[in-house]
Amino acid sequence: MTAWAAGRGHSIAKGTSRDIRVANRFEVMRVVIAQSPVSRRRIATETGLSIATVGTVVGELLAAGLLLEVGFEDSAGRPRALMAVDHAGGVLLGVDVAETYVRVDLFDAALTFLDGVEEALSPDENRPGQVVGHIVSGVRTVLDRAGVPERRVLGAGITVPGQVDHRGGVSVFAPNWDWHDIPLGRLLAERLGVPAHLDNPLRAAIVAELWFGAGRRREDVVVLNLGTGVGAGLAFRGTLYRGATNSAGEWGHTTLVLDGRPCHCGGRGCVEAYVGAPGIVQHLRELDPDSPMLHVNDQTATIDALTRGIEAGDPIAQKVVAETARYLGAAVANLINLLNPEAIVLSSWVATRLGEPLLAEVQAVVARHALGRPFLATEIVRSTLPGDSVSLGAATLALERFLSDIAGR
Amino acid sequence: MTAWAAGRGHSIAKGTSRDIRVANRFEVMRVVIAQSPVSRRRIATETGLSIATVGTVVGELLAAGLLLEVGFEDSAGRPRALMAVDHAGGVLLGVDVAETYVRVDLFDAALTFLDGVEEALSPDENRPGQVVGHIVSGVRTVLDRAGVPERRVLGAGITVPGQVDHRGGVSVFAPNWDWHDIPLGRLLAERLGVPAHLDNPLRAAIVAELWFGAGRRREDVVVLNLGTGVGAGLAFRGTLYRGATNSAGEWGHTTLVLDGRPCHCGGRGCVEAYVGAPGIVQHLRELDPDSPMLHVNDQTATIDALTRGIEAGDPIAQKVVAETARYLGAAVANLINLLNPEAIVLSSWVATRLGEPLLAEVQAVVARHALGRPFLATEIVRSTLPGDSVSLGAATLALERFLSDIAGR
Ligand SMILES: [Zn+2]
Ligand SMILES: [Zn+2]
Repeated sequence: MTAWAAGRGHSIAKGTSRDIRVANRFEVMRVVIAQSPVSRRRIATETGLSIATVGTVVGELLAAGLLLEVGFEDSAGRPRALMAVDHAGGVLLGVDVAETYVRVDLFDAALTFLDGVEEALSPDENRPGQVVGHIVSGVRTVLDRAGVPERRVLGAGITVPGQVDHRGGVSVFAPNWDWHDIPLGRLLAERLGVPAHLDNPLRAAIVAELWFGAGRRREDVVVLNLGTGVGAGLAFRGTLYRGATNSAGEWGHTTLVLDGRPCHCGGRGCVEAYVGAPGIVQHLRELDPDSPMLHVNDQTATIDALTRGIEAGDPIAQKVVAETARYLGAAVANLINLLNPEAIVLSSWVATRLGEPLLAEVQAVVARHALGRPFLATEIVRSTLPGDSVSLGAATLALERFLSDIAGR
Repeated sequence: MTAWAAGRGHSIAKGTSRDIRVANRFEVMRVVIAQSPVSRRRIATETGLSIATVGTVVGELLAAGLLLEVGFEDSAGRPRALMAVDHAGGVLLGVDVAETYVRVDLFDAALTFLDGVEEALSPDENRPGQVVGHIVSGVRTVLDRAGVPERRVLGAGITVPGQVDHRGGVSVFAPNWDWHDIPLGRLLAERLGVPAHLDNPLRAAIVAELWFGAGRRREDVVVLNLGTGVGAGLAFRGTLYRGATNSAGEWGHTTLVLDGRPCHCGGRGCVEAYVGAPGIVQHLRELDPDSPMLHVNDQTATIDALTRGIEAGDPIAQKVVAETARYLGAAVANLINLLNPEAIVLSSWVATRLGEPLLAEVQAVVARHALGRPFLATEIVRSTLPGDSVSLGAATLALERFLSDIAGR
């Protein structure tokens, strides 16, 4: 059960006073990250919190070593202290474990990127111990290069594909590796002396947007991770949505074409079968089986070739984008009609590479499929986050965990 | 903007202290409704609230005339006052405006059904003044029959199809009547001396489940209104979800069969085209164009005939149910994969009539389409609410409004 157990069953949400204290910390931290150096009064204006509450929260964050007083501003002859994130203080780690690589990124407490390393995972390296080995060596590498001792790490956020029990730190089910109930959190704790938060990459992607991207000024937001697999990170009322068992967001395995293309999940006609990278490659193969853009068994190279083809005005490449958008636009319209969000954000490597041409085609298709009113309420945009938004989000989840745990003090 | 404006942008939800006060009132009222007569201590145990908070809230509800002290129980020699809803106090009205009827139900403050009246709407009675006239005459009828003066009405909840601005009391867009920006709330206020809350029927349906049905002990719940049109009422974290412009839940117009059957929304292959009552009638027509179960231009009579056919073991009727479930099950699986809810509740008249046979077929289809883990976390059930759950939910929204407004005192 969640902290929300007492609040169920009506149309106004409810939090405990502890939830509010923690949420206030998040709000204050976000304002300091975005606007530092910043006075307590300015934080109060930006968050809508009282000066007294801001004073308390800033005190907690100073004591926890996250913030510093960096000077004063003059306000009608009265000096006001200015706060900033302590960039020389604690650091955060974001680890994105994917099927073909382990990426470890190091951030300061303001989630400024410091350094990153990516280790390839070969197809036969699918045992938990091997993956943990890559995580540990990646973490050691970035910490060594930065000269940061483990004790300065406030937390590490780690995402693994599939079903994750984020409370217990367990990879419940990772279909591609046939993992069942692997206690990754415990395995990592035995090797690393840093607090670890395990989660699913869709959770990380939406949290990154909430803190730093399209979710900053919005309540109801969907981020679409468009890569080899596809999925949706969901936020409702400005808050990450996990569903009953932390497996919400499997939009890639919703049916768009009943009895359509086979999907690797065992179903047919899933969104992913048409808009995941292998599905896009299949569109190309169906349009031109002899296309020089096709790279056998290398979807990344094929998508890269398509990207260059679009830039060069290649008509086949343009048709592949239009065909992908025909499915992706209908599937985005489904999200708009069902969820009436304020924004849908296209993210991950396929969205980055196919870029504006894909977005433009998708917007045109959505306009035909979505209902008028919710369509007008939804902005469809590309993610503006730099780098790997999953590792950024993972590190942000680790910061949230750290901020939550201050409460226990 | 909502009361949640300050709480956006992170993974822990946040409420204002006023939200919490109002939510506490809802919790206490729900426990008293469900368990009356009940002591303050028992309310505290059931809600998880402190005795002091329960004391404050009970005091507010006593002062507002919603509750009564009805006696005492003996607790180790110390008498404890018992609370109950004042059944002789205020009443609530629930009004379900559909395309073919206006239903007005009267409830006491515990949402116990007292009396109801249904007035038919002929197809040419589609002007706002005509609909308001039916609402007013229905309200007068039930109040007169019960001998209740208008001043005892705590509130009236009214649902109309389409896009509703629930804050302004405006029917923004009702496609079947081509209504645009009709200020129904104001028109009603001119004719009725009771506080009115206007909303969409999907909102009412899920609020009814949250207070009295499958949503009582659950956090993330979807109710499917299966009638002429179909749609989904959504609750996340125990709280009604409206989306950015109160138009969430248009699951009926999500695409299930790309380029499939035409839908009256102008799209193709929408869920509604296959599982709305006219879509079910079309399955029958395609299976047996000469079926005696077909009643031209009367979908209700045709669904009734199908219901009797199922009971009699008619193979065509069974095939129609299986064909309907083939689409409905896939569309339910989409909700499970995307939202990972704890329960999906089948509601409204088609669900009532096709009953267990439809549910059983749907469960079998969902098992094939949904991902394993979220499937196991989701119960698929029929609504257990008696009567018209939309008018019950509308009256409940009116009670919520009344409970919220106590705060201003
Ligand atoms: Zn699939
Ligand atoms: Zn439609």
